[in-house]
Amino acid sequence: MGNKGDLMTFRPDIMVLDATMRDGGLVNSFNFSDDFVRDLYITNIKAGIDYMEFGYKASKEMFDVNEYGKWKFCDDEDIRAIVGENHTDLKIAVMADVGRCDYKKDILPKAESPIDMIRVACYIHQIPTALEMIQDAHDKGYETTCNIMAVSTVSESQISQALDILMQSPVDGIYIVDSYGSFVPETTRNLADMYLEKAEGSNKYIGIHAHNNQQLAFANSIEALSRGASIADVTVNGMGRGAGNCMMEQMLGFLRNPKFNIYPVIQFIEKHMVKMREECVWGYDIPYLLSGILNQHPKDAIRFLKEHRTDYTSFYKEQFEKL
Amino acid sequence: MGNKGDLMTFRPDIMVLDATMRDGGLVNSFNFSDDFVRDLYITNIKAGIDYMEFGYKASKEMFDVNEYGKWKFCDDEDIRAIVGENHTDLKIAVMADVGRCDYKKDILPKAESPIDMIRVACYIHQIPTALEMIQDAHDKGYETTCNIMAVSTVSESQISQALDILMQSPVDGIYIVDSYGSFVPETTRNLADMYLEKAEGSNKYIGIHAHNNQQLAFANSIEALSRGASIADVTVNGMGRGAGNCMMEQMLGFLRNPKFNIYPVIQFIEKHMVKMREECVWGYDIPYLLSGILNQHPKDAIRFLKEHRTDYTSFYKEQFEKL
Repeated sequence: MGNKGDLMTFRPDIMVLDATMRDGGLVNSFNFSDDFVRDLYITNIKAGIDYMEFGYKASKEMFDVNEYGKWKFCDDEDIRAIVGENHTDLKIAVMADVGRCDYKKDILPKAESPIDMIRVACYIHQIPTALEMIQDAHDKGYETTCNIMAVSTVSESQISQALDILMQSPVDGIYIVDSYGSFVPETTRNLADMYLEKAEGSNKYIGIHAHNNQQLAFANSIEALSRGASIADVTVNGMGRGAGNCMMEQMLGFLRNPKFNIYPVIQFIEKHMVKMREECVWGYDIPYLLSGILNQHPKDAIRFLKEHRTDYTSFYKEQFEKL
Repeated sequence: MGNKGDLMTFRPDIMVLDATMRDGGLVNSFNFSDDFVRDLYITNIKAGIDYMEFGYKASKEMFDVNEYGKWKFCDDEDIRAIVGENHTDLKIAVMADVGRCDYKKDILPKAESPIDMIRVACYIHQIPTALEMIQDAHDKGYETTCNIMAVSTVSESQISQALDILMQSPVDGIYIVDSYGSFVPETTRNLADMYLEKAEGSNKYIGIHAHNNQQLAFANSIEALSRGASIADVTVNGMGRGAGNCMMEQMLGFLRNPKFNIYPVIQFIEKHMVKMREECVWGYDIPYLLSGILNQHPKDAIRFLKEHRTDYTSFYKEQFEKL
């Protein structure tokens, strides 16, 4: 399923998911104030956003609850404290990482939960476990997506196989995930065409989650949408790991569907993100460009920038040695 | 003339022009140290850049030489002090603005000058004068381009007319210029197709000069090249007016022609641009995004950011009142 087409015109099928607290949570260890979260929830409603991802459903056996803010765990009662029964058009999503989530225990039946969608994130070799998690969430009554990470490091035949398997599952959406920010629009176009061809005839949709290493997160997201993807992940001010993500304000300034509204997002940035940018660091910088070009995990670049280094040539040489 | 095609493969026809001193000069009033300029010249040679634009040939009758650095005027002897007789593959360009250049007097015959190319910048209503300047430079022995600015504010039929006229001129290249950073790749694609269709059968090439208001300068440049444009303007670190330009390091990390080399650019950034970024401000920010989306001149955004304001909602409302 998927509508190609001219983005300058109105494409009512396009949905937007706010991943600020999930991908941005990787920047500040999920330490968002309740005031921030409540305002973001209201902003998303006003801005016409379709889904708000609150964070991860991470295993408390595996991660120390004292080391992270509560949105790494997304207990249903913590979400409910913000959204109540959420009688709005904004749906609530959380991410469940394969191997890092006690999903059988921690994901309650949908009827008892404020959550609408479980996004299962996995690497390609984890697809079998992802399928179990998708089935579990589906059986409990949730919408589901499968976000196959780091596909820039995987052969097309493997991706093709994974997609064939997913097409037999009850998953609702499948995401193209550019974890390393290494895609250029041409890469995105080719992958989007492949994912969409696999999804043809099913009622599954394709999504795009981009990283901004080469300042192409927005361009790649547009490209995927124009080929027929139906949902794009964005974050306010691009807040997300390393170079960050496609910015909500970019996307809402671009989409022509009158349900979207950029102004509340600008208000939110003025009130919360100016301060946030003083407290933690994300966004485009030379080391992210280089790790994106070289298709490397951003962790070295994150460490380099944390040390306030600007000896970019050393970084370049170090990255090359890892190839 | 123009080769479409897959950019992941080798497109030997693609040329790159370094506009750091010209567009970046608008940020620091053309006050580059000789050390900076000499290193940039050597960097460009090592990086495989095709053209280096040194600045403007601005009228000394109109502009006070004490108010600007020498690269606003680009006297031949100042260029020669850097490049000597320039026995390299790197060609030297300068920009001549219609109405702000005493071209008859200040542009010497090519045989006496280190300059190779005169880039004539004009608004659409200035095309007749641009033609005179192009003819003058051509007759003096220079390569020429015509850079029609702010085409995002002009109707397609006007652009079409301007292109028809330019096709009758001796101009070598015609630039798509996104002065306000308002293009998305779809806009660029449509304009590139139009410019290229007009140029078909001629030996004129098409260029792209992008601004980064929506963080789309790189994406728009790639898009134009993939449609058949032959030359892209870049600047080191994106240094240029307002949101800046497509970054040389982005473009060289992307192009597959082995003559291009990103490493000397990373060296130059480490040595010069880290310091430059402390001295003056350019690059993506919320007000530029908004002026780009609203297709407005960046001057209000530049002023807003100079005052270190973050009341983005006031800026948004002020810009809307001007529409």
